[in-house]
Amino acid sequence: MSKREILEKLVSGEISLEEAEERLSSNQIELVGDFARYDLLREERTGIPEIIYSETKSPEAVYSIAKKVLEKKPIVLLSRIREEHVKEIQKLADYYKLEYGTNKHFCRIMHKDFRPKIDEGKIGIITAGTSDIPVAEEAKAIAEMMGCEAIIFNDVGVAGIHRLFEPLQKLKKENIDVLIVAAGMEGALPTVVAGLVDIPVIGLPISTGYGYGGKGQAALMSMLQSCALGLAVVNIDGGISAGAIAAKIAKKRCK
Amino acid sequence: MSKREILEKLVSGEISLEEAEERLSSNQIELVGDFARYDLLREERTGIPEIIYSETKSPEAVYSIAKKVLEKKPIVLLSRIREEHVKEIQKLADYYKLEYGTNKHFCRIMHKDFRPKIDEGKIGIITAGTSDIPVAEEAKAIAEMMGCEAIIFNDVGVAGIHRLFEPLQKLKKENIDVLIVAAGMEGALPTVVAGLVDIPVIGLPISTGYGYGGKGQAALMSMLQSCALGLAVVNIDGGISAGAIAAKIAKKRCK
Amino acid sequence: MSKREILEKLVSGEISLEEAEERLSSNQIELVGDFARYDLLREERTGIPEIIYSETKSPEAVYSIAKKVLEKKPIVLLSRIREEHVKEIQKLADYYKLEYGTNKHFCRIMHKDFRPKIDEGKIGIITAGTSDIPVAEEAKAIAEMMGCEAIIFNDVGVAGIHRLFEPLQKLKKENIDVLIVAAGMEGALPTVVAGLVDIPVIGLPISTGYGYGGKGQAALMSMLQSCALGLAVVNIDGGISAGAIAAKIAKKRCK
Amino acid sequence: MSKREILEKLVSGEISLEEAEERLSSNQIELVGDFARYDLLREERTGIPEIIYSETKSPEAVYSIAKKVLEKKPIVLLSRIREEHVKEIQKLADYYKLEYGTNKHFCRIMHKDFRPKIDEGKIGIITAGTSDIPVAEEAKAIAEMMGCEAIIFNDVGVAGIHRLFEPLQKLKKENIDVLIVAAGMEGALPTVVAGLVDIPVIGLPISTGYGYGGKGQAALMSMLQSCALGLAVVNIDGGISAGAIAAKIAKKRCK
Amino acid sequence: MSKREILEKLVSGEISLEEAEERLSSNQIELVGDFARYDLLREERTGIPEIIYSETKSPEAVYSIAKKVLEKKPIVLLSRIREEHVKEIQKLADYYKLEYGTNKHFCRIMHKDFRPKIDEGKIGIITAGTSDIPVAEEAKAIAEMMGCEAIIFNDVGVAGIHRLFEPLQKLKKENIDVLIVAAGMEGALPTVVAGLVDIPVIGLPISTGYGYGGKGQAALMSMLQSCALGLAVVNIDGGISAGAIAAKIAKKRCK
Amino acid sequence: MSKREILEKLVSGEISLEEAEERLSSNQIELVGDFARYDLLREERTGIPEIIYSETKSPEAVYSIAKKVLEKKPIVLLSRIREEHVKEIQKLADYYKLEYGTNKHFCRIMHKDFRPKIDEGKIGIITAGTSDIPVAEEAKAIAEMMGCEAIIFNDVGVAGIHRLFEPLQKLKKENIDVLIVAAGMEGALPTVVAGLVDIPVIGLPISTGYGYGGKGQAALMSMLQSCALGLAVVNIDGGISAGAIAAKIAKKRCK
Amino acid sequence: MSKREILEKLVSGEISLEEAEERLSSNQIELVGDFARYDLLREERTGIPEIIYSETKSPEAVYSIAKKVLEKKPIVLLSRIREEHVKEIQKLADYYKLEYGTNKHFCRIMHKDFRPKIDEGKIGIITAGTSDIPVAEEAKAIAEMMGCEAIIFNDVGVAGIHRLFEPLQKLKKENIDVLIVAAGMEGALPTVVAGLVDIPVIGLPISTGYGYGGKGQAALMSMLQSCALGLAVVNIDGGISAGAIAAKIAKKRCK
Amino acid sequence: MSKREILEKLVSGEISLEEAEERLSSNQIELVGDFARYDLLREERTGIPEIIYSETKSPEAVYSIAKKVLEKKPIVLLSRIREEHVKEIQKLADYYKLEYGTNKHFCRIMHKDFRPKIDEGKIGIITAGTSDIPVAEEAKAIAEMMGCEAIIFNDVGVAGIHRLFEPLQKLKKENIDVLIVAAGMEGALPTVVAGLVDIPVIGLPISTGYGYGGKGQAALMSMLQSCALGLAVVNIDGGISAGAIAAKIAKKRCK
Repeated sequence: MSKREILEKLVSGEISLEEAEERLSSNQIELVGDFARYDLLREERTGIPEIIYSETKSPEAVYSIAKKVLEKKPIVLLSRIREEHVKEIQKLADYYKLEYGTNKHFCRIMHKDFRPKIDEGKIGIITAGTSDIPVAEEAKAIAEMMGCEAIIFNDVGVAGIHRLFEPLQKLKKENIDVLIVAAGMEGALPTVVAGLVDIPVIGLPISTGYGYGGKGQAALMSMLQSCALGLAVVNIDGGISAGAIAAKIAKKRCK
Repeated sequence: MSKREILEKLVSGEISLEEAEERLSSNQIELVGDFARYDLLREERTGIPEIIYSETKSPEAVYSIAKKVLEKKPIVLLSRIREEHVKEIQKLADYYKLEYGTNKHFCRIMHKDFRPKIDEGKIGIITAGTSDIPVAEEAKAIAEMMGCEAIIFNDVGVAGIHRLFEPLQKLKKENIDVLIVAAGMEGALPTVVAGLVDIPVIGLPISTGYGYGGKGQAALMSMLQSCALGLAVVNIDGGISAGAIAAKIAKKRCK
Repeated sequence: MSKREILEKLVSGEISLEEAEERLSSNQIELVGDFARYDLLREERTGIPEIIYSETKSPEAVYSIAKKVLEKKPIVLLSRIREEHVKEIQKLADYYKLEYGTNKHFCRIMHKDFRPKIDEGKIGIITAGTSDIPVAEEAKAIAEMMGCEAIIFNDVGVAGIHRLFEPLQKLKKENIDVLIVAAGMEGALPTVVAGLVDIPVIGLPISTGYGYGGKGQAALMSMLQSCALGLAVVNIDGGISAGAIAAKIAKKRCK
Repeated sequence: MSKREILEKLVSGEISLEEAEERLSSNQIELVGDFARYDLLREERTGIPEIIYSETKSPEAVYSIAKKVLEKKPIVLLSRIREEHVKEIQKLADYYKLEYGTNKHFCRIMHKDFRPKIDEGKIGIITAGTSDIPVAEEAKAIAEMMGCEAIIFNDVGVAGIHRLFEPLQKLKKENIDVLIVAAGMEGALPTVVAGLVDIPVIGLPISTGYGYGGKGQAALMSMLQSCALGLAVVNIDGGISAGAIAAKIAKKRCK
Repeated sequence: MSKREILEKLVSGEISLEEAEERLSSNQIELVGDFARYDLLREERTGIPEIIYSETKSPEAVYSIAKKVLEKKPIVLLSRIREEHVKEIQKLADYYKLEYGTNKHFCRIMHKDFRPKIDEGKIGIITAGTSDIPVAEEAKAIAEMMGCEAIIFNDVGVAGIHRLFEPLQKLKKENIDVLIVAAGMEGALPTVVAGLVDIPVIGLPISTGYGYGGKGQAALMSMLQSCALGLAVVNIDGGISAGAIAAKIAKKRCK
Repeated sequence: MSKREILEKLVSGEISLEEAEERLSSNQIELVGDFARYDLLREERTGIPEIIYSETKSPEAVYSIAKKVLEKKPIVLLSRIREEHVKEIQKLADYYKLEYGTNKHFCRIMHKDFRPKIDEGKIGIITAGTSDIPVAEEAKAIAEMMGCEAIIFNDVGVAGIHRLFEPLQKLKKENIDVLIVAAGMEGALPTVVAGLVDIPVIGLPISTGYGYGGKGQAALMSMLQSCALGLAVVNIDGGISAGAIAAKIAKKRCK
Repeated sequence: MSKREILEKLVSGEISLEEAEERLSSNQIELVGDFARYDLLREERTGIPEIIYSETKSPEAVYSIAKKVLEKKPIVLLSRIREEHVKEIQKLADYYKLEYGTNKHFCRIMHKDFRPKIDEGKIGIITAGTSDIPVAEEAKAIAEMMGCEAIIFNDVGVAGIHRLFEPLQKLKKENIDVLIVAAGMEGALPTVVAGLVDIPVIGLPISTGYGYGGKGQAALMSMLQSCALGLAVVNIDGGISAGAIAAKIAKKRCK
Repeated sequence: MSKREILEKLVSGEISLEEAEERLSSNQIELVGDFARYDLLREERTGIPEIIYSETKSPEAVYSIAKKVLEKKPIVLLSRIREEHVKEIQKLADYYKLEYGTNKHFCRIMHKDFRPKIDEGKIGIITAGTSDIPVAEEAKAIAEMMGCEAIIFNDVGVAGIHRLFEPLQKLKKENIDVLIVAAGMEGALPTVVAGLVDIPVIGLPISTGYGYGGKGQAALMSMLQSCALGLAVVNIDGGISAGAIAAKIAKKRCK
């Protein structure tokens, strides 16, 4: 109910002054135990589906929040889970369908009859090396939940720049709306790609590499410092972040 | 001429084998003196207009490259210029129209009869404080060159979160495609905004603040570490970068 | 015995010159084995109760110091303990009451008949996410030992700023003296809160998040760089520090 | 007007539905030109008086905002000003009273007949060295604007720890509510002080020192890493931040 | 044999030209397998006894080098050893005497009949907290090997500065030549001590503490940035380094 | 087939226009499953043999790529492998010959009858300490695959600079083309060596050392900041990088 | 005179024992005033000509050392000079020939009749942007002094990767021994180039760019973290370092 | 007067109880204006003479403090002064003798008839390059004030390690008690020296060098990370710190 509607109902006497005050204050939040507040309207407001960032939550908390969400929504994504989370959430397998990423670092849980509707736009995902694939999968997982198709091209590194041309041509034929380019180590690939295409590029630094600039730092820094334009960046290993903004972009562009 | 066309002309005998080889190798680069290579096809390829990053170039070099570009293109943007650049490029004022940013840290030089065509999409720009305005203007300048309208709402800080609601409502009515949110110091504004809107947000950290995390570091870090989704980031003071990616996003695919 | 009293006793001959010298030098320190000095007057002097920072001490040392303290004081807090400490201190359970935090990373040990007197002031604690709860509990634990009531509101993140308004109103009704605001990742919440309330706010950065600015660095930086006033900060995961200063603030001077 | 009052007026017909909607949305913001939004209710809401952070604003912008504020409020503080700001704001000297800090890095501008009411609490300020005085003065300036008395003790360094005892005793007699301790270089003073007093201590790191940890970094780090409790910290050179939180604490404690 | 002696022998015909050349080149190095060069004259040249930095060496390598050294020297110190090293070197227990530090992170192996001669000077070691003891023991171990007596005073923190006075007085009576002051967290103790004594102080930062400046960084920075003079510093956890330089100082001063 | 050859075949009718277009686009890449692209011509193009950076790849992926490569090439190097990789690749032992580094952190797999041809140049490798040996072995392994002989001199530290002279003389006699100097901790050795020889020196920082500048940071920084010329640097623990560039240098141009 | 020769002369009685001792100790160092030691044999020993790093030396000191060197050698290079140095050294123009870099940040001073012999090998230098040219010139200047020809190709950035192919082909025809690739900002160019050529590549990071990773940090990090092999790196703006190692490599390879 | 004496006088009735209390509290501090506290007994207590760290103090403050000190002491050292300080303190030239360092970055002011007594020990100072000389002079200046002779050997770099041997031999003949070794850039010299001598070495990093590790960071890090023992370190450009600790070391205990 919008503010206008509440006021009209108040004037018409449908609701009392107290109720009006209440509703105007109401923030559509539902409690999970006493440790979490579930924001019922977020998806409506922002277009972002339900995601539970699990790394620093106990398996029990993750389980409880996931269950609460699934009472209201058909699907939820659990990001950055570890073995102990897997053990706990596996209990939900009797009632829901569970889909894990390759190395079980994320999981989508959904109603058994749920099928995501993919009709909003098209995202291309390029990975510089095979080590980037698990994070790229995260991006794909969230993008699909937001209604976008995501096509991955793997292992298109810059040490042999010609490896790049074929995937770029294929992506061009696919009529892609936005590109995610994942790269670790020196992270040069997004710069090179952004200099060759006319669609927005999201740089996704990956925590590979060692020594000075290792664990994704050089990759992040390169992408932010890039001499190419048409490139914005998310944090290191931010597959979810990359997928979400790409999906928002793809939706907008295909309207 | 595309690769296909070159090959067809070769087969039909219109061009010699040598000429075909030459053209396939040709990279459409024009030299400026012996110190710069001007990439004639970049705009066509990437949609990014001509920009000369001037900070570390001598005023003479900036002048020469600008002049060369203006022989081929109707408009060029000079970014991060200083007083000595202004003095040098002012020589172009007899033949061209010059438009500076508020504090003359960038300049657009264009043919006297040039009028940018603004028909591609709409970008909203929110600044957290008045110190962010010069960089926001850069974003607007490049976005317009790429055919997009850009509307700025200034001084919408988070220390008084209610200052935010009115501009957001106004922007909603404007049917904005993408938001740039510029903020220095702690850089919290893009996070708050991204939690309230359903369009893509580009975080633009500004080099304000002092002490630990000053000069934009806290702002950049906050935006990359944001708990809100639908947010991608450019480098500190990257007004050009923010404007360019926003314009690419705002341009509709299926026009 | 005060310096004055010692001198008077010396003049009156009650104590010898040597004894006077000795007592003036005495610093009210008691040895625990040969590895620790227990400062008997600290609580009196500073109002801070006994805390044993355990992380880098051996379980045996923690056990010995705790036992020594409990001979003199009714309660002691063991902070940053690990499994091996838990095993060792559990031996004290026959003689004392042990209260652990949710994930056993801290423990309060007290005389079986000890009841803390809570009559000094009221502290509000807001956590941005469920991952912040364990550290918030630390703050509550020490604040109670210092005689202050502490009320926690959990999971009031900024990605959905309206989640904030209800807890703030509730806290306002509670007549809170000071607020602790715990947040990880980008740490924007304390800034937003400090812009809305007229009581002092203590920012408590939490070591969540990954990549650039992860493990609490972005949170700490944001809070120090905050554009809102009325905010001071403790170190990352400094639940004890936040609780102690908040309790000192909440204690009224002119009772 | 509170939300409740607006609703009551709507029901009683005193205001129209449109007006009610308008007022509920209204955020009490006044525009300064098109580059600043002046938050009329902030002082009421947070107790923080008007401050203009000037460093990254043009002298003209600072002048305009100051003038606008002085139409509504009797006093405004301009922080981190430079020579060019001084030149510009000096124009206000005909109509207002201007008070500068020792080295003109901040200025308070007030109505000629304005006298701050100092009746809210008492703040002690200790500086470790003479280099810390200008920042300490900032803290005093804002604290006074918030109604608190502030007493400064200068040059109480730790390299000669006995220099500390006399000022501490004097402050004790003054019945201080809260202490600000300013220190540069290694920043050890707040730690030592916090181990000796029973009131809250605000650590204020100063940008003195050179080499590794210079410009206040070691001082900030030491204060956050302090082994003493009852200490919270503001950013390097954050005199305004320290004064504002101290005043909020002093007000609360003396009620 | 000195260079002079070699030349004299050459002239007198005692040795051949080839032998002279050989000896002048000779660097008194003995090979251990093909992976280590044992510098036979280092102790003679620098006064530093044999130490094997073990952390990044395999247990087998440590064992071999230790055995080789013990053929030539009566004692060797193995620093930064881990469990797997302990297991390996324990094999030497039949032939040699092994003395470990409290938590077995270092070990001295010596001929069964070896007794270090302690007659060179006196070192005082002060630890700020019980967590600093293991590193302080390293300093003591090497200092004794260099002929110096070392007296440790534990847990003399700055949060309660009066805890410091008694140990300082005791050390004064002992006629100490040099002080090592070990401290973690904010590392303020060496600064305070250096302001009170007239002998050289070696600051020894310890890797305690967490969050910003944790793991000894704040301690190191504070000591280097110290406002007190008469203080020099070794690296974090550098017990061996502190003990070695202190012993060199003590030897010199008591001559 | 070169571009010229393709065009000639097209003109002569040997291949169709489509085939010509295809071949010109072809990038000589072979897919491994859908997760890796194997660049068939890289060795030909750059002289660098096949290396699989294994650290962030799953054992299964490493196995698959290795197998694919060995179908085309006689030898492949797996770098930065861990126990789980060893277990997986050991399955190849029936068909191929496997050679591990000392601590099994890298492995060369080759056809059983393969013998590398060592005829291209000579590389000297000096290690400052025994901890540097495993990384030095990596450099040797890749250099040999590139046809160069590599001679290692171990444990030639700077704390006893005379240890250096004998190995340098021996290397001089060997007619070495280029020197790799590996050092951890303070990394001074490459600077000293570069000041004494007339051949190019490659600095190879090793991740030994602890505290400030530990894990190779001081070593890397020293080498980049070196006051000696004729020195270039690779990343920390970059044995492969050092070996590859050294081999490229050692290979004579005008054979 | 070699050690052998000295010994032979001693035996033959040509020189006395004292003289032999003296000569063996002699280090062929000549004093300049009391503030500099000029190493007469360095060029002979290392092949590196005389360079005076001027930035932190007074103009007078630079002048004196240069003059001393020119008494012994035909040419000297002054690096990182500023205006005040130029003024001072200009006094040498009557007796010597002075050649400055484009923006007078370095200078070669030589005997008026001196002509460098360029016959040792060929170095290619590629700059990513026009801002990199001044540093590239430094590399050329020193390389020529070491007898190598150096060919510069400017403005070959990666944002438009095809700009690269033509210069690479030209360089290939030139039979280059080694490539220096200079790049600022994200520094991706050396990685891309190293993936395409079979000669050694020296990465030369340039201090362009701003914000996170600006002033060459991203460039340096990218090059060290590069996924391409055959690449070694010098420090930011290290034109002299790059030129010197490249010349050493070129000399070796063309032998 | 010692505590014992005060007590004896109290007992004997020489002083009253009030006076005794007063004296026991007395901290022998004298005020300079209201901005500085002059610690009259520091020199007696610590052996460190009067030094005024001037960089962040106003010229007027420096002047006032210097004047106050010179009423009580015959000599004072002003460190890190700038031109504006020189101008101000020059006013003291009529009454006192002023001695500046080479580039006027420090100054000793003394009574006209004052002659420092140099009879306490001997310090050697080695500089790696001419750029290190100004800081080395600071060390000499303070050491002399503490009664020690200081002998400087300049420009003894490691790029040509043989330059080192002659100065070391000379120093050996001088019977030096302690060595200060100043070095910028990679800072390798103290490590090499410490491996060759049997006296304590103080590493003094200098802020030369540029790029990664420039401004003394690499030098500091190298010295802390040194593989040689018998070395302790002061902060970058800490000439005063190095001189003070060296003088404390050189002063013999058992004179």
